[in-house]
Amino acid sequence: MKQVKKVSQRTRAITGGALVAALALGGFGAYAASAAPAQAQAQAQAPAAQADAKTDAKNKNLTESTHLTIDAATKAAQTALDAAKKENQRVTVAVVDRNGNTIVTLRGDGAGPQSYDAAQRKAYTAVSWNAPTSVLAGRLAQTPTLKDIPGTLFLGGGAPVTAKNAPVAGIGVAGAPSGDLDEKFAQAGVAALNK
Amino acid sequence: MKQVKKVSQRTRAITGGALVAALALGGFGAYAASAAPAQAQAQAQAPAAQADAKTDAKNKNLTESTHLTIDAATKAAQTALDAAKKENQRVTVAVVDRNGNTIVTLRGDGAGPQSYDAAQRKAYTAVSWNAPTSVLAGRLAQTPTLKDIPGTLFLGGGAPVTAKNAPVAGIGVAGAPSGDLDEKFAQAGVAALNK
Amino acid sequence: MKQVKKVSQRTRAITGGALVAALALGGFGAYAASAAPAQAQAQAQAPAAQADAKTDAKNKNLTESTHLTIDAATKAAQTALDAAKKENQRVTVAVVDRNGNTIVTLRGDGAGPQSYDAAQRKAYTAVSWNAPTSVLAGRLAQTPTLKDIPGTLFLGGGAPVTAKNAPVAGIGVAGAPSGDLDEKFAQAGVAALNK
Amino acid sequence: MKQVKKVSQRTRAITGGALVAALALGGFGAYAASAAPAQAQAQAQAPAAQADAKTDAKNKNLTESTHLTIDAATKAAQTALDAAKKENQRVTVAVVDRNGNTIVTLRGDGAGPQSYDAAQRKAYTAVSWNAPTSVLAGRLAQTPTLKDIPGTLFLGGGAPVTAKNAPVAGIGVAGAPSGDLDEKFAQAGVAALNK
Amino acid sequence: MKQVKKVSQRTRAITGGALVAALALGGFGAYAASAAPAQAQAQAQAPAAQADAKTDAKNKNLTESTHLTIDAATKAAQTALDAAKKENQRVTVAVVDRNGNTIVTLRGDGAGPQSYDAAQRKAYTAVSWNAPTSVLAGRLAQTPTLKDIPGTLFLGGGAPVTAKNAPVAGIGVAGAPSGDLDEKFAQAGVAALNK
Amino acid sequence: MKQVKKVSQRTRAITGGALVAALALGGFGAYAASAAPAQAQAQAQAPAAQADAKTDAKNKNLTESTHLTIDAATKAAQTALDAAKKENQRVTVAVVDRNGNTIVTLRGDGAGPQSYDAAQRKAYTAVSWNAPTSVLAGRLAQTPTLKDIPGTLFLGGGAPVTAKNAPVAGIGVAGAPSGDLDEKFAQAGVAALNK
Amino acid sequence: MKQVKKVSQRTRAITGGALVAALALGGFGAYAASAAPAQAQAQAQAPAAQADAKTDAKNKNLTESTHLTIDAATKAAQTALDAAKKENQRVTVAVVDRNGNTIVTLRGDGAGPQSYDAAQRKAYTAVSWNAPTSVLAGRLAQTPTLKDIPGTLFLGGGAPVTAKNAPVAGIGVAGAPSGDLDEKFAQAGVAALNK
Amino acid sequence: MKQVKKVSQRTRAITGGALVAALALGGFGAYAASAAPAQAQAQAQAPAAQADAKTDAKNKNLTESTHLTIDAATKAAQTALDAAKKENQRVTVAVVDRNGNTIVTLRGDGAGPQSYDAAQRKAYTAVSWNAPTSVLAGRLAQTPTLKDIPGTLFLGGGAPVTAKNAPVAGIGVAGAPSGDLDEKFAQAGVAALNK
Repeated sequence: MKQVKKVSQRTRAITGGALVAALALGGFGAYAASAAPAQAQAQAQAPAAQADAKTDAKNKNLTESTHLTIDAATKAAQTALDAAKKENQRVTVAVVDRNGNTIVTLRGDGAGPQSYDAAQRKAYTAVSWNAPTSVLAGRLAQTPTLKDIPGTLFLGGGAPVTAKNAPVAGIGVAGAPSGDLDEKFAQAGVAALNK
Repeated sequence: MKQVKKVSQRTRAITGGALVAALALGGFGAYAASAAPAQAQAQAQAPAAQADAKTDAKNKNLTESTHLTIDAATKAAQTALDAAKKENQRVTVAVVDRNGNTIVTLRGDGAGPQSYDAAQRKAYTAVSWNAPTSVLAGRLAQTPTLKDIPGTLFLGGGAPVTAKNAPVAGIGVAGAPSGDLDEKFAQAGVAALNK
Repeated sequence: MKQVKKVSQRTRAITGGALVAALALGGFGAYAASAAPAQAQAQAQAPAAQADAKTDAKNKNLTESTHLTIDAATKAAQTALDAAKKENQRVTVAVVDRNGNTIVTLRGDGAGPQSYDAAQRKAYTAVSWNAPTSVLAGRLAQTPTLKDIPGTLFLGGGAPVTAKNAPVAGIGVAGAPSGDLDEKFAQAGVAALNK
Repeated sequence: MKQVKKVSQRTRAITGGALVAALALGGFGAYAASAAPAQAQAQAQAPAAQADAKTDAKNKNLTESTHLTIDAATKAAQTALDAAKKENQRVTVAVVDRNGNTIVTLRGDGAGPQSYDAAQRKAYTAVSWNAPTSVLAGRLAQTPTLKDIPGTLFLGGGAPVTAKNAPVAGIGVAGAPSGDLDEKFAQAGVAALNK
Repeated sequence: MKQVKKVSQRTRAITGGALVAALALGGFGAYAASAAPAQAQAQAQAPAAQADAKTDAKNKNLTESTHLTIDAATKAAQTALDAAKKENQRVTVAVVDRNGNTIVTLRGDGAGPQSYDAAQRKAYTAVSWNAPTSVLAGRLAQTPTLKDIPGTLFLGGGAPVTAKNAPVAGIGVAGAPSGDLDEKFAQAGVAALNK
Repeated sequence: MKQVKKVSQRTRAITGGALVAALALGGFGAYAASAAPAQAQAQAQAPAAQADAKTDAKNKNLTESTHLTIDAATKAAQTALDAAKKENQRVTVAVVDRNGNTIVTLRGDGAGPQSYDAAQRKAYTAVSWNAPTSVLAGRLAQTPTLKDIPGTLFLGGGAPVTAKNAPVAGIGVAGAPSGDLDEKFAQAGVAALNK
Repeated sequence: MKQVKKVSQRTRAITGGALVAALALGGFGAYAASAAPAQAQAQAQAPAAQADAKTDAKNKNLTESTHLTIDAATKAAQTALDAAKKENQRVTVAVVDRNGNTIVTLRGDGAGPQSYDAAQRKAYTAVSWNAPTSVLAGRLAQTPTLKDIPGTLFLGGGAPVTAKNAPVAGIGVAGAPSGDLDEKFAQAGVAALNK
Repeated sequence: MKQVKKVSQRTRAITGGALVAALALGGFGAYAASAAPAQAQAQAQAPAAQADAKTDAKNKNLTESTHLTIDAATKAAQTALDAAKKENQRVTVAVVDRNGNTIVTLRGDGAGPQSYDAAQRKAYTAVSWNAPTSVLAGRLAQTPTLKDIPGTLFLGGGAPVTAKNAPVAGIGVAGAPSGDLDEKFAQAGVAALNK
């Protein structure tokens, strides 16, 4: 009882913010990077909660967490890579789950060596704070030491994947001439999950 | 459809083995280290599947995984530490989830410095192969390079936590004069989850 | 003789500062982050001495240092975690001793992956300089390279635990939407030690 | 001239051995693990040369190396993963190029945490010595310290991909109950490149 | 067919930029650091594509990449070191290929300990973005977190080596009193490849 | 009350073994490597408890631990180094405290590069199990994976320093032609603490 | 011949700068941090040459480098530690040679955990650029990415030791309330070498 | 006085052994791997002293150590690489100085990815114990944990370079089908220093 109530409280607490407003209602949320940057930055450093951990009716010691299947993650990564290829950009794509573990990496033909780590870190950062890394980079103006947390990279190119109002994965792309371009491809990967 | 069928196939495949025979039917399984060592070793290197990833009826891109709540994990770790204290042993206890992430560490008073990493690695190893590390250590006779996998430690003291016929966590204890003693405390931690 | 005198001199040297003024006299000191920030920042980079190392009357080769018991550290961490839960925040809590060793970690349900390392580093930083990390972050304005010291994180959320006028541990919390919120929970953990 | 001659000499040197006998003549070579183990072991520690580095007719400073395209590498990895799924095994698959860089990783649903690093190291080892890791593991009897080379794992589950009589990639699979099973899936991945 | 077309598209896309304008037409391109800094910076964060990956007519699964021979890389490194010696500067020189692997290091007599890692990172950075690190350092004004990508160093002294309109290697020099001086020696190394 | 009793129980538990029999009663114990090897090995893997953690009468949350002063540790290290010099051996000496932290290192003139890490690891191992590393190396026959615990080195040359019936530090020496010789120098360092 | 001439050229090149003006003529040079900061900063990033590498008359393949003896390094470190104790500061002291290897560490009683790594990095930085780290920190204004070179720390507290007009070691102190104080103790260590 | 005497004592102590008997008297010593293996193994674990550290007549705080010039080291590495090429072997060559720092690396065309680290570790091991790694590998029979010292690799292919009766560098080769072959090339590199 208590735990179910707590979860709904948490949801309410979050729905008050700009962040959740951008979450897709009926499927995977491609956080729109252009949406309300001012508000988003006001939420400096606001990491997102994990996909609703539902209590097990029979065993209160257990909780469930939500993940992308490997098929879904591969589809998203492949779509991001294809989007980059269409614009003749050579990139690496990574998908990281909510626990911070990398589940897919695709090093595109001709992608620079720096893109492999960068893609993973962007994905890690996006899923940790449930926001595109282009938005998160803006938060450094207020809280510059956020970027000193190990494993993170506050550089455009990472997009969160949300389900049930919470982050379940991050997609990171690196290798294009700008973080905006990288992030466009990452968002294409997120969008593929709704098809 | 196909996926549900696949899952049940997997379950059947596993239930044919000695490993599952030792799983608790009605709750958390404290793998009995004394049970059927010959058979267990015959399953050399057989890692266990994660707690049944249930497909989301509404979204085939998603899967669920099972975790201990932090309250349950803390209770298990505390119980293991108390069990060691009762025998005047100074140990560190760690709980690692199925994704390999440490969720609880308790460095007991007076535990040696080596016990911190050792406890985590034992827990990591136990959850990776869903077997006590004392049993897994025996598998090295056949497959000695198993122990070269990063993050593992094939030394008694790690016990898997199972739920729904699959591993959900590992509990590792280090610091007592023998791995058997360490593992006894780890098993006490597992047992606490059934109370 | 000489050594006892030296210790008292040291104490005097420190009691002249704002830092010690905030130390609790009769128990564990929850450094008040709101207290005298200007003065605190003037003490840029002033690490704190360890709990009074008392000389052994019978053996001048030995010295004693003060630690939290694992029971106390667990109680503090649990309290910090509960405080976060009450506000529906999903965080990780870590306790680090004066030697820099982590003694307790509790990864809360649904806490982001970045919170685990962040919590430990905040705790490490707080105990190293005997000040809340929110205060220490302010010192970077004068001495920006302080944050390049390995293992540190100058981000709100770490609180020192003091005993006998010296730091004995640090409590770090990470995962809430702001460092101030994280630090509030860490302070709740410190406060629990006085009950 | 001299260089072309040298290359052909090298080829000859290698074709004298059992290793090359197993190379596919008309496409990608799936090294048959069952072939001539005695002979293979006699070649203890024989790493393979990279795909023929052709000199650039116009610029003797340059050389060319052969790689799998990301599309081919993804296809191979996906095939290996599917082969495992068909047998209800939960594994991670990795593809590493001849330079030792990982180009694809797919962490299968429910694969244990140890499988991610293990798969990469198996792939790395297979491409380094151009032999299946099950064969390479046998070489440790004669040269046990081979396994101390950083990044390697001498455990069944890695298969080399050859082209033009030289290794161009390695496919590593980890997570099944035995290295032989892992390697069967890896070989399925290699075979997919000939279709 | 499709792939060949794609490659030519990519080439066109790049030749439109300031970056390529500085590439040597008939051999190895020593990117002129003095050329068009404003334009270069406008291309903030624009990594370069790898040397044209040509498809294998007989096997569409394969692609070729271009590397310096070890003889060429050694000649370039030696020339850079000699250039430094002539000006009584004590430096380390490193050559890194397009895959990020170091292929040559020469630690000059009397070079400081910091120069070894620094030279490799400068070379790595130069080949990743196909620009001298002195130019890349300027890009941090717009995109400061670029420098948080692992393995990079945005400090003068790294020069890219290009062939066929794409980067094939980076030469890094460290140890002289200024990054400009280091880079002058690195450029001397690049120039040696055209003789 | 309870805790005091527990401590004495622990002491009794240990005093039953060969290990404690070798502890010096009136000062620092130089564990005699020649004493009772059979018995010692029977205690395979028996780490030692930390110097008695005394409870603080006024605050049950606190415990005290015993350390060597830096002056004592330096004296011990210097004595070990001098002992090596007298026999024309070039070694590195390290002192590690019970928390695993290195407190003194002295890299002797002409000591090989491998000796620095080796000395620290030997010291770390000796203090972790409260036994000379020459004795601990013997335990690997029964429990070979003990040596896989991070930070350890089971090679002669490490000697524990005990006080109040518990380990407080380890002294490690590396660089002489044999571990026995290294350990002789380490024991000289321990002996210096009793003068 | 040629090489001797080259060395003298190098010396001349350096003697033109402010840096060398501060070198002690008749012994070990304690670089005066107060001297000519403007000029020093103008020499941004000017690492120092190693102590004159003299050619071996009989073998031109060999060169000699100058080091502190372990006795001298220990004396310097001990003096720095004593200087800190006199002012009731609890610090760690490290001495690093010109090759970047740590030769002495002394972790003072009660020094914070962060001081150990910090002291080594300050010493490393001071010997790399042959200047006090307080001066080097000033250079970041012009060349901020200098501090991204691995192993360095641009924070007051490191002082170079020079001999024969070149750096031979660095002394680093960390743990006092300010870098200036740390550096005062480090300079005391340098001064001890002239007695 | 005392120090000079000590040095000569050391020399005498060493000249009594089999190891020194193999040192070249008039130049660089290519330790003959075939010489007296039984005796060499009897000296299990006997690291070699550094090239005679001569005391500075004017300053007893200083000592000199001997290094290869970068020109000599490059010549040796190049010769080793050429020797491998002549036999159509694709290898990496590394030269490490007595302080353990790598001074030259040459990654030969087509050398496997594992060869880069392996070559450096072989060189490091050879210079640490002043013996070929093929001989050192034999010592593991008596002292198996020697190989657990960080940075070492006890696999044929490393050869020490000696001067003035002491090791000054190590040359490591990796990538050929056997360690013996690798070591033959390394010895060719050593031999080049006597021409």
